Amino acid sequence: MIADLIKANRSCRRFDEKHSISTANLLDLVDLARLSPSAANLQPMRYILSCDPATNAKIFECLTWAYYLKQWPGPAPGERPGAYIVLLHDTRISKTLDCDHGIAAQSILLGAREMGLAGCMLAAVKRSKLRRLLNIATPMKIKLVLAMGKPKETIVIDTVNEEGDIRYWRDENQVHHVPKRRLKDIVLTSYPI
Amino acid sequence: MIADLIKANRSCRRFDEKHSISTANLLDLVDLARLSPSAANLQPMRYILSCDPATNAKIFECLTWAYYLKQWPGPAPGERPGAYIVLLHDTRISKTLDCDHGIAAQSILLGAREMGLAGCMLAAVKRSKLRRLLNIATPMKIKLVLAMGKPKETIVIDTVNEEGDIRYWRDENQVHHVPKRRLKDIVLTSYPI
Repeated sequence: MIADLIKANRSCRRFDEKHSISTANLLDLVDLARLSPSAANLQPMRYILSCDPATNAKIFECLTWAYYLKQWPGPAPGERPGAYIVLLHDTRISKTLDCDHGIAAQSILLGAREMGLAGCMLAAVKRSKLRRLLNIATPMKIKLVLAMGKPKETIVIDTVNEEGDIRYWRDENQVHHVPKRRLKDIVLTSYPI
Repeated sequence: MIADLIKANRSCRRFDEKHSISTANLLDLVDLARLSPSAANLQPMRYILSCDPATNAKIFECLTWAYYLKQWPGPAPGERPGAYIVLLHDTRISKTLDCDHGIAAQSILLGAREMGLAGCMLAAVKRSKLRRLLNIATPMKIKLVLAMGKPKETIVIDTVNEEGDIRYWRDENQVHHVPKRRLKDIVLTSYPI
């Protein structure tokens, strides 16, 4: 059931770094994005794959983790992602991009989840630095970095509180809590939900 | 397998309009979007559901169909969508939106596909008219309309030709062809693919 996969697909930020991920796995994941919808079928997304320690380390340097966890500098050595997929927009194909990268990222992470991996979509990226380190050509705009690995954290979905505070947080056991709005808060109808 | 569902989830524009879709079905689909990733977990997406003929007719008036099929005015009566989900961005929650609507739309359409439905993400929308007809408040920005129904067309994926022509087309049997780029055209690596 897709509902089970979507529920299980939580944004994960701590991994078992010893678990290696192959280029073949990453290609299978990009293939899911390739076969997903694209506005006017233009298919302007391009992908850089990384699953070797040297490239992974370069990408890691360019990422900012978990906006709401101010005391947490990001995953420690040994808990870092085993692979990345960098999502680029080829501006030679389309000047603007609406949400193709969101569609692609969701397909990729659902596929990763099915492989027993977990991941996180990161948009807080030091783009100039990443461009320099990976030698990304000018017409390519960096949209997202997907970090992936064997998950090493417990994540639970909570219902948002009365104040509507949506900030995720970690409890004393390092369980990661994610408050989600209720269905009735996001559907604009007079239907009873 | 998520790969099978993603492959089967083709953008569909002709439906069996007699097949009715319930509000309960649409709520199940929005629930998939609700549990999908959202940038900084802000969850600024809001949803309007429509599965009654009167509201469906209003929404249909505001849509432009199939950019590349210039001779085709869109689905004829009897082949129109049985339901719609309008995706709105609540600008009171976040001023800007990156790709939350893409993530949400992909989750919804994968769920619809699993229900035996098919759909299409439409961004070519007469927004002022739709706002007026559905009485959409000013802080809500219309991002996408998802049209859904029981599919009544055959869609095949082709490999893009040498010229890289990505325009979809219909053959003499009204089979809808969608040229997709090759994996090696979208992955920026020196790996043999």
